[in-house]
Amino acid sequence: NENDYICSKGMEEPVEGKRTWVQISGLSDIRTIAEIGKRYNISNLSLEDALSTDQRPKIEFASTYFFITMRILDTPDKTEEQISFFVGKDWLVSISEHTSDVLNPVIKQLGSEDNRLRSSTPDRLVHALTDRIADQYLVRADELDMQTEALEELVVNQAEKVTASMIHRHKRAILHLRRISMPLKELFNTLSKGETPFVSASSVPFFRDTFDHVLWLSEECETLRDTSQGLMEVYISSLDMKMNRIMKVLTIISTIFIPITFITGMYGMNFIHMPYITKTAWGFSFVIGFCIVLSIWMIFWFKKKKWW
Amino acid sequence: NENDYICSKGMEEPVEGKRTWVQISGLSDIRTIAEIGKRYNISNLSLEDALSTDQRPKIEFASTYFFITMRILDTPDKTEEQISFFVGKDWLVSISEHTSDVLNPVIKQLGSEDNRLRSSTPDRLVHALTDRIADQYLVRADELDMQTEALEELVVNQAEKVTASMIHRHKRAILHLRRISMPLKELFNTLSKGETPFVSASSVPFFRDTFDHVLWLSEECETLRDTSQGLMEVYISSLDMKMNRIMKVLTIISTIFIPITFITGMYGMNFIHMPYITKTAWGFSFVIGFCIVLSIWMIFWFKKKKWW
Amino acid sequence: NENDYICSKGMEEPVEGKRTWVQISGLSDIRTIAEIGKRYNISNLSLEDALSTDQRPKIEFASTYFFITMRILDTPDKTEEQISFFVGKDWLVSISEHTSDVLNPVIKQLGSEDNRLRSSTPDRLVHALTDRIADQYLVRADELDMQTEALEELVVNQAEKVTASMIHRHKRAILHLRRISMPLKELFNTLSKGETPFVSASSVPFFRDTFDHVLWLSEECETLRDTSQGLMEVYISSLDMKMNRIMKVLTIISTIFIPITFITGMYGMNFIHMPYITKTAWGFSFVIGFCIVLSIWMIFWFKKKKWW
Amino acid sequence: NENDYICSKGMEEPVEGKRTWVQISGLSDIRTIAEIGKRYNISNLSLEDALSTDQRPKIEFASTYFFITMRILDTPDKTEEQISFFVGKDWLVSISEHTSDVLNPVIKQLGSEDNRLRSSTPDRLVHALTDRIADQYLVRADELDMQTEALEELVVNQAEKVTASMIHRHKRAILHLRRISMPLKELFNTLSKGETPFVSASSVPFFRDTFDHVLWLSEECETLRDTSQGLMEVYISSLDMKMNRIMKVLTIISTIFIPITFITGMYGMNFIHMPYITKTAWGFSFVIGFCIVLSIWMIFWFKKKKWW
Amino acid sequence: NENDYICSKGMEEPVEGKRTWVQISGLSDIRTIAEIGKRYNISNLSLEDALSTDQRPKIEFASTYFFITMRILDTPDKTEEQISFFVGKDWLVSISEHTSDVLNPVIKQLGSEDNRLRSSTPDRLVHALTDRIADQYLVRADELDMQTEALEELVVNQAEKVTASMIHRHKRAILHLRRISMPLKELFNTLSKGETPFVSASSVPFFRDTFDHVLWLSEECETLRDTSQGLMEVYISSLDMKMNRIMKVLTIISTIFIPITFITGMYGMNFIHMPYITKTAWGFSFVIGFCIVLSIWMIFWFKKKKWW
Repeated sequence: NENDYICSKGMEEPVEGKRTWVQISGLSDIRTIAEIGKRYNISNLSLEDALSTDQRPKIEFASTYFFITMRILDTPDKTEEQISFFVGKDWLVSISEHTSDVLNPVIKQLGSEDNRLRSSTPDRLVHALTDRIADQYLVRADELDMQTEALEELVVNQAEKVTASMIHRHKRAILHLRRISMPLKELFNTLSKGETPFVSASSVPFFRDTFDHVLWLSEECETLRDTSQGLMEVYISSLDMKMNRIMKVLTIISTIFIPITFITGMYGMNFIHMPYITKTAWGFSFVIGFCIVLSIWMIFWFKKKKWW
Repeated sequence: NENDYICSKGMEEPVEGKRTWVQISGLSDIRTIAEIGKRYNISNLSLEDALSTDQRPKIEFASTYFFITMRILDTPDKTEEQISFFVGKDWLVSISEHTSDVLNPVIKQLGSEDNRLRSSTPDRLVHALTDRIADQYLVRADELDMQTEALEELVVNQAEKVTASMIHRHKRAILHLRRISMPLKELFNTLSKGETPFVSASSVPFFRDTFDHVLWLSEECETLRDTSQGLMEVYISSLDMKMNRIMKVLTIISTIFIPITFITGMYGMNFIHMPYITKTAWGFSFVIGFCIVLSIWMIFWFKKKKWW
Repeated sequence: NENDYICSKGMEEPVEGKRTWVQISGLSDIRTIAEIGKRYNISNLSLEDALSTDQRPKIEFASTYFFITMRILDTPDKTEEQISFFVGKDWLVSISEHTSDVLNPVIKQLGSEDNRLRSSTPDRLVHALTDRIADQYLVRADELDMQTEALEELVVNQAEKVTASMIHRHKRAILHLRRISMPLKELFNTLSKGETPFVSASSVPFFRDTFDHVLWLSEECETLRDTSQGLMEVYISSLDMKMNRIMKVLTIISTIFIPITFITGMYGMNFIHMPYITKTAWGFSFVIGFCIVLSIWMIFWFKKKKWW
Repeated sequence: NENDYICSKGMEEPVEGKRTWVQISGLSDIRTIAEIGKRYNISNLSLEDALSTDQRPKIEFASTYFFITMRILDTPDKTEEQISFFVGKDWLVSISEHTSDVLNPVIKQLGSEDNRLRSSTPDRLVHALTDRIADQYLVRADELDMQTEALEELVVNQAEKVTASMIHRHKRAILHLRRISMPLKELFNTLSKGETPFVSASSVPFFRDTFDHVLWLSEECETLRDTSQGLMEVYISSLDMKMNRIMKVLTIISTIFIPITFITGMYGMNFIHMPYITKTAWGFSFVIGFCIVLSIWMIFWFKKKKWW
Repeated sequence: NENDYICSKGMEEPVEGKRTWVQISGLSDIRTIAEIGKRYNISNLSLEDALSTDQRPKIEFASTYFFITMRILDTPDKTEEQISFFVGKDWLVSISEHTSDVLNPVIKQLGSEDNRLRSSTPDRLVHALTDRIADQYLVRADELDMQTEALEELVVNQAEKVTASMIHRHKRAILHLRRISMPLKELFNTLSKGETPFVSASSVPFFRDTFDHVLWLSEECETLRDTSQGLMEVYISSLDMKMNRIMKVLTIISTIFIPITFITGMYGMNFIHMPYITKTAWGFSFVIGFCIVLSIWMIFWFKKKKWW
């Protein structure tokens, strides 16, 4: 097909009237990247942003292209990485730290025949790519939501299996997601306003759609943060309750035995003239019986006070 | 009546000069939905939003209709669901996950004669429907407010019947309501500005009225969140107080009996030359009497210290 | 006087060139209210807002009047209620739930001769009335501030007289005041901008003055909320300190008596060959003396550790 | 000098072409104040604001003057008070509750020859005065910052000398300063925009300078609030740690002595056939020795568990 | 090179057509500073801001220059200091408290041949300098992030090595960084808008780049603050858990020994008619055996209750 993209994983000359997607994975081959920057008229400042891997997600405009940088979340196989897109009239340059599986479905779509994406302009292609990434965020938010519920379940029912650091690590993950997703609101808002060069009017509803998802995501993050906050409180109060239970056992045992131990101590004193009871045959049994009665009475008292 | 709505639960051709309301319940019959989307010129993106059931409540405008998506709260019978409205010049398409009882009163109104709604434009009809849904939110907020008071009552008077997770679950319900009602502010604000196509000037005061309710709702949610926050603190402090009471009992019992147990231990020692008192007839009674006096004195001391 | 207001507690026809104030107290006589609504051209939506008693305080504009709804705080005699004002060119309709004493001073002013209010336009009259209500809020905020200080005093000095629920209830009262006063900022801001129909330029400084008070009030509410938040923390820490004190007593008593009780136990053992000391005349006194010395040493040790 | 200010502490007629500063201290002489209000064309509403001493700091504009009201902080001698400035083309009226020392340096400057202030317009004079007051706020913020550090030092090192109410009172002072300084941002922002009548362009940089200080002050207040918040947490955790230490002592003492007291109890039983050891010469010493060894082993065990 | 900067550490006359950078380190030589202020037409207010060392970071504009003041963070050798830049058409005056090493790389660049900076306008030079300073902030934020993780590690694994004040001090450092970096957002936003005199269009992307870094920094500070907040909670809950462990040991020991000590006390009573068991040969062993069995049963019971 005439409109098909030329996909390349290295240097590729821009061809007039042909759509090109240059995919750079790995930042070590600086020379190629510089070469591409030169051919596609990419400013050095933008290239440096793409190469330094701890950039704030953002969008920037130049005269011949616009520039997006985002973060791809870690997957079971890969660590978190940064990806940058340079979008021109009929070309797209993407620079990422390593090959990520997240964008594979889009690459597949480009390869399958009769797919609309195949003959669409670079703005639609970059939408498909960034939408995939934003989707990954939503999936992560849902995972974190389920983890929150699982943790909650655990805190309530088996608090001894939970540690404060589990909750704290969970909260950090939420804060991290929130931090890298917050700038996306601004980014997609800009793209969905329809005043961006190289973004055609027909692409605006798509970016608008992604913007709605990102808004929803950011509210989800807020709710998650509030909920995980509450989780810590529930955990601390469950520790308090456990302490209460331990103290109750100690107190009940002590309160029952301390007084009757005093009684045995009393009759253990070495007085010459002991009370008459010590001289009777039934004395010992009587005292022990009294101790038992006293204990039972105290147990009832605790039951009445709802301690047990 | 000539102005009456044609209500249909399936595919229905739009008829020029006739008002139509197509009510789709259930998202399984994709083909009918696609067919309706085609006939009423609904864009695919909007339809997809209506079909994916975890959308952020929002309003969107197209050239021939506007599109609202909201959530209907769970009722005793039904789970929470998403409902979407497509509002055109003289037609309304609603797509929901299942048949909900919430909108029944409006449907009844449409059926009863001499009702104004019957001959009103679709914007008024969609107002009636969304207002019902927003009303449900207000009712839920009131329920949560009453639950808050009930929980409060319980925490203060019978803290042992409360668990931290009850309060936490209550707070989650509040956060959920807050999250799904927040976007409604934006939605009804847009509709009450009177610059929306297909919303006639005469409908604006109605949407303005609903907007006021939603504002009130969002402030209620904030207050609820703050109050439920405080509830957890009251609960934790009630646990602390209970612990204090338990510890007090243990301390009082220990403090009274430990010293007098020492005294009995003292006279229990096997010295050949015991103090003179052990040889007297009144010695035993005297020591026991002293222990009782000591105990009583300590009880008075605790009372004075306001421990009891 | 020709400019005097015609005050009426029921239906009253508007008279051209005459100022009228219709005061409706009680919402049960729906027919009269509907009748008045008709004569004064009040829209049904506004009337419904006046009749449903849980409205968000707000201001709304119609072509022939503007509409204010606010809440009157509870007084010792009366419960909290909603009051609505409809202000036209030369008439004022007020609808409240029951007769409240709060507005009496203004009614008196209207009755007394030579009072400016008597010959002023309805906007000035409605300012006098709403200003009275806002004043009541300021008084309540001051009361809550004094209660905060009293609670604080109590928490610090007599924590046993305070319960967590007292602080919580206090905080709820603050949150309630905050919630019903927040919308007043918007309301009086609108009125003090001078672009409102039926509000003459000469009244604007008066509304501006009330707006300043309401701003001050809202900041007071924020400060109150923060302070009451801190109060709970002080209370919890006072519970902790009390627990510390109780535990200290238990620990001191236990730590002193447990070792010396062991000593008495030691000499209470039934060995045939006991240590020489048990056979001496001074043995008993010596052991008891040793116990006393040990106790005193421990007391000094606690004092040195600043436990006492 | 011709441009010198006529300073007066009572009624003073405005003189055309002469600069006047009327300083009213004390609000009891209502008649003089009313008289001045009349001569300088000051509206009654503004005068009332100057007389009621619990006003929100603000700025207001009239046709012939502008009106500022602020609070002067308490000094060792004086309580907090309100001061109001009415600034006209060539006159300044200040109304304060009592004579405050804070403004003395400015008054001195006015008196000393060759001082620029002497021949400057009232806007510059009012800048000098309000800048002095804002400076006092900055000094107070610095004091509170140092107090925060001192309290922190104390909490960390001598927590027993600190009470929760000390921290709470400290926090209240911060909240109070924050509350009365927040409106100053708005006030000086208005003055530094250069669109205010009676404020010459040459004065704008001065007000801009004060505005910068006030911005810095407000951020300082935020930081102070956050820090004092943390202080309470450190205090509560220091109470917790103290409790831990107390409990550790109790637990160590109990855990060592309870088992060996059981041993002595064992040999204190009155059985006819006691174990052989009770009949040996070395039995007593052996049992006591065993108790000592057990205790030492337990102490080592605690040391290994890092309890000591 | 003709375009080279004349760098001077003291007074230097501005030369038409030559670029000058006057670097003042140390604020004691007031006369030189005043002299420079005169020659370069710097207003007194700006100079005073540069001399008083506790200014809010800001940017201000005058007709012949613009003025930036920022803070340089403390390094291992130097304390935190303030630095001010006055940027004119072809000159730059910097005033700092002492010589700082942070700017050395830029000074080196100016010295090395063929460096672009050497022939650039003062706005680019001031960008290089302020970017260095902002970079230092980012490095500090990363350090604080790593410290947070280290503290977290410590709190979770070796809580006894952590004190509340360590966490508090850490949080203060974060709050301090946040406070001095917040105004930078405003500062660089102003510079990156491209409407600033003496900032050429070609410099705007550079300032925009720094602005992005500062935005990222401010979000990092927010996340750090939230995380350090959580750290305190984890710490307090780790104290609670430790307390729980201590109390468990105490309770287990007490609960095992208190009942069996009662048994020994029972048989230690001096009754004439003791139970038959005290007269048997196997009595003593039986009772001790019973105590051991009871203890073992209790240990199993605790194990089952998951206490151990």
